[in-house]
Amino acid sequence: MGTIVALAGGVGAAKLLRGLVKVVPPKNLFVIGNTGDDIELYGLHISPDLDIIMYTLAGMVDEEKGWGIAGDTFNCLEMLGRLGFETWFRLGDRDLATHIIRTKMLREGMTLSQATAKLCKMLGVKANLIPMSDNPVRTKIQSGNVLLEFQEYFVKRGTKDTVTGVIFEGVERAEPAPGVVQAIEESERIIICPSNPILSIAPILAIKAVKKTLENSEAPIIGISPIVGGRTLKGPADKVMASMGFEPSAYGVAKFYGNLLKYFIIDEIDKEQKGRIERLGMKVTVTNTVMKNLEDSIHLAKVVMSIT
Amino acid sequence: MGTIVALAGGVGAAKLLRGLVKVVPPKNLFVIGNTGDDIELYGLHISPDLDIIMYTLAGMVDEEKGWGIAGDTFNCLEMLGRLGFETWFRLGDRDLATHIIRTKMLREGMTLSQATAKLCKMLGVKANLIPMSDNPVRTKIQSGNVLLEFQEYFVKRGTKDTVTGVIFEGVERAEPAPGVVQAIEESERIIICPSNPILSIAPILAIKAVKKTLENSEAPIIGISPIVGGRTLKGPADKVMASMGFEPSAYGVAKFYGNLLKYFIIDEIDKEQKGRIERLGMKVTVTNTVMKNLEDSIHLAKVVMSIT
Repeated sequence: MGTIVALAGGVGAAKLLRGLVKVVPPKNLFVIGNTGDDIELYGLHISPDLDIIMYTLAGMVDEEKGWGIAGDTFNCLEMLGRLGFETWFRLGDRDLATHIIRTKMLREGMTLSQATAKLCKMLGVKANLIPMSDNPVRTKIQSGNVLLEFQEYFVKRGTKDTVTGVIFEGVERAEPAPGVVQAIEESERIIICPSNPILSIAPILAIKAVKKTLENSEAPIIGISPIVGGRTLKGPADKVMASMGFEPSAYGVAKFYGNLLKYFIIDEIDKEQKGRIERLGMKVTVTNTVMKNLEDSIHLAKVVMSIT
Repeated sequence: MGTIVALAGGVGAAKLLRGLVKVVPPKNLFVIGNTGDDIELYGLHISPDLDIIMYTLAGMVDEEKGWGIAGDTFNCLEMLGRLGFETWFRLGDRDLATHIIRTKMLREGMTLSQATAKLCKMLGVKANLIPMSDNPVRTKIQSGNVLLEFQEYFVKRGTKDTVTGVIFEGVERAEPAPGVVQAIEESERIIICPSNPILSIAPILAIKAVKKTLENSEAPIIGISPIVGGRTLKGPADKVMASMGFEPSAYGVAKFYGNLLKYFIIDEIDKEQKGRIERLGMKVTVTNTVMKNLEDSIHLAKVVMSIT
């Protein structure tokens, strides 16, 4: 069996991946994670998307929120507030250990991919989680004349700003992290997780060598719509699609990826879009894509793995 | 009124200082703190003695333990353990905020004394807490053929090793932090807190310019014995005195400081040592020195301030 590659953002991707590791041997799975929304806070390097996936695959994620660690407390954050710092980024006490150790590793000269591999190993994650790049790429959100840091837009201001443009700062100098190109080249199946196409997957695709390797790959590339019934289950994908000129629908997502996709999976609620999407040149599978529990995730993973 | 200078270690010093700030205007008080037991853990700079004093004067110390923050939790530490790191140094979640911010400030180019002043300000500490030096001094403990890091000796191994020597690594290159020499020169009264003479006060005195300024000062230097009835209330001062060849008693402490002291305060339980200590050339005051509560601390502070 070859490798399975998954391009992943945060919560939506993690939900699919928790099913996928029950369906394929985790060591064959290579998850390429978005680092465009990484942020440095209080001198600590935070990789929100990598952590969501790591915590989910380690079985310790806060299922209610989709991010952070289950049962975490926020006492350090409270004290940071008392010391005069902003506390809109909700870092839990247990979660902080990850950021402290990642920062220590990076300062000691490790790359982000090495640090990620080590953290995953310590938490018993057997799938291969690789940041898209070891070079810093920072997603910035343009809203009219204002340019916002990603987390400022996403967390601090609660995605209330209309997104009129997205910049992946540093992406032109970013090389894929070691293992990324090889994983794609050796893959028998490539999955674009149900993540925000514009904010979570586009940063990965914006790395030239990643895009090129995907385009040259003979493995089927399978997308899953993060938009169901015209709305996202989590995050602002629908709003962002609309304000960036894409139809906020499964069709709009398919159109955004275009030729890159050979297969596309949409929810039953969107089945009337099947014909339109197929006219874009991809095969469409209709199934339940809303992952409320592990069984839903396993179901969707099985569908992803059975597509031919 | 001139300034009051206090040379301070950890818990014993903090207990006196919490009384002193009720007796003298806090802004007139300059506390010179030991940094010999500073440690870098998980990439964070930790200054245990400075923090004990800061938390005590901010009214947030864990009174039961004498260190750390009252009601703190230890969830980050638990996670650090899960990530494979040693967790013998008991860092609370709230406490961690201090270390995270201190480390951030130091990495951004601030000195330890600047970072300390800023942290104190944020926590509403009005007394001036100054680390003895902005240069790193690291206390190492010799036990026979073995050389231990201070916190390894103190916390990890629980002071079980016999101390046969003490090294203040880096002290010959350490300059007093800005304000230390001036505070001593302008002081009307200098207090050597009831801290471990060998492990907490000696590192401060080992900085040449500090020792020299103290020796040249005309202000009365007042010591308080941390050993009461032949035992220390907290920490290993009695054992260390004995193994280093000093009598583990109020007399032994007085002898350790020798000519530096003009006045010495001992506990009532040790009153029979008064004559012996006075023969060392200092005036001795006998009072209750055991500080079980704030009233005890205020009492001792008043005694310290009334000595002439």
